[in-house]
Amino acid sequence: MTTSIKILRTVGQVRAWQKQCFFNKETVGFVPTMGALHQGHTYLVNQSLKENDRTIVSIFVNPSQFAPHEDLDAYPRTIDHDLQALESLDRPVDALFLPKVSEMFPSGIVLDVAKQKGAFVNGVSTIVTKLLNVIQPTNAYFGQKDAQQCVVVKNLVKDLLIDTTIRVCPTLREPNGLAMSSRNAYLSQEAKDQCSIIYKGLCAGRDYYEEEIKSGKPVSAAAVADVIREVFSSMPKEWNLEYIAVSHPESLEDLNEIESGVGATVSTAVRVPKSDGSGTARLIDNVQLNG
Amino acid sequence: MTTSIKILRTVGQVRAWQKQCFFNKETVGFVPTMGALHQGHTYLVNQSLKENDRTIVSIFVNPSQFAPHEDLDAYPRTIDHDLQALESLDRPVDALFLPKVSEMFPSGIVLDVAKQKGAFVNGVSTIVTKLLNVIQPTNAYFGQKDAQQCVVVKNLVKDLLIDTTIRVCPTLREPNGLAMSSRNAYLSQEAKDQCSIIYKGLCAGRDYYEEEIKSGKPVSAAAVADVIREVFSSMPKEWNLEYIAVSHPESLEDLNEIESGVGATVSTAVRVPKSDGSGTARLIDNVQLNG
Repeated sequence: MTTSIKILRTVGQVRAWQKQCFFNKETVGFVPTMGALHQGHTYLVNQSLKENDRTIVSIFVNPSQFAPHEDLDAYPRTIDHDLQALESLDRPVDALFLPKVSEMFPSGIVLDVAKQKGAFVNGVSTIVTKLLNVIQPTNAYFGQKDAQQCVVVKNLVKDLLIDTTIRVCPTLREPNGLAMSSRNAYLSQEAKDQCSIIYKGLCAGRDYYEEEIKSGKPVSAAAVADVIREVFSSMPKEWNLEYIAVSHPESLEDLNEIESGVGATVSTAVRVPKSDGSGTARLIDNVQLNG
Repeated sequence: MTTSIKILRTVGQVRAWQKQCFFNKETVGFVPTMGALHQGHTYLVNQSLKENDRTIVSIFVNPSQFAPHEDLDAYPRTIDHDLQALESLDRPVDALFLPKVSEMFPSGIVLDVAKQKGAFVNGVSTIVTKLLNVIQPTNAYFGQKDAQQCVVVKNLVKDLLIDTTIRVCPTLREPNGLAMSSRNAYLSQEAKDQCSIIYKGLCAGRDYYEEEIKSGKPVSAAAVADVIREVFSSMPKEWNLEYIAVSHPESLEDLNEIESGVGATVSTAVRVPKSDGSGTARLIDNVQLNG
């Protein structure tokens, strides 16, 4: 790989880079990724470039975010493509952190959750805590697509008194509404076309809510989910709807009623068969119901 | 309170102080305490003063380290005495962090562990993670007396990639061998005198091990515990021996055999009635068996 981007592979290298930024009184923006970069990521990176003196991106396919033997090995790794994407922005990023697993998990890693040792909070929390401890960024950028991750990370930073501001950016979508995701690469064009139904369903739920809330009374969460389920009923029969959840926007606790002034996050996960027949791609998406 | 020591009460104040040290390229030593300072603490503080440009001490009685209604309210709070102790050192400390509970637990705190929300690792890990995230010290000082805490903190810093070196200092003892502890204040002089039996028992176990390991064969952990239990058998009958543990010095897992080259930590906890009749003081102590 030849590139103008500073590639950092060890925690020590990142700390030296970060300390230099700090001494120069430069703000640091950080975009954590698992690689397989798409426009959703470059949106986050551009946001960071706009809002900070320096921007660092990490690419780390975190083993602890996958269930045992889920799709960790199959997860797309496209480092040359990713580097190209990061170089071809209006302004290239300043640094790319590409750690080995042993660098991030110095005590080793046990994928069977029941056997996990050490200071695991959970898969996402642990890796984000580690990355924030190493990089100590001024701002860190996450996509709204993974609503649960955004809430977990916001609470983590608040509870553990980490000196970083979490910036949540809107979900980027294909023209047909499909949320951009590295996992979309698993899908045939036909499946991608059919996936428009996911966002369509969520929007129908939101439209229903926005109409109902005008009455001034709380809206039934079950009724919102029913509207979405009605749209989803015309999904291909081999797809598997994992859940439709109507949750409190901050605690993510399940709601029975959606109140004006509080609102809700409506999220869903759907398993869609991969084009190569090797299993399913788990697609997630969500919309916000304004309080 | 009038004092020459800089008193910091908020996370923001500590961050500003820390950043100034960092810009000045000064190393920062940190001694976390729950107050009620005794010579064991001042030993840690002096060690920090020797090894760092700046030293900050925290006093925070961490509610999550107490079982519900244990002795949180009764835990000695002696802030004037503590300030005096910190001022009368050869060189006073640079800063004292005295946070309110709401400052360290911005999401509130639920003492019923089953109901705890947020990014709790456990009581000790969580508060140490928070303090290290806020203070970002070069070195942090802990006493060997709480062997389990030392192991937990060392693993935490390693696993979460926190940029701090953990320095473990030896246990300070009264002339009769009783490990110094804020909880000793609960004891009558007679009880303190009788407490010499705790260290005496641990030392008898260590002596037995050191003799046996000369054979070149592993030593039975149960046999070491038996030697200690024999000494402890002449404890006052109203005392309550919670445990004698023979553990791996790094993982703290129970050992069946102590191997040359590995060694062990032998620890105990004893509940001794308080002099005011209001319950018991839980005294802990340990010795290291060299591998």
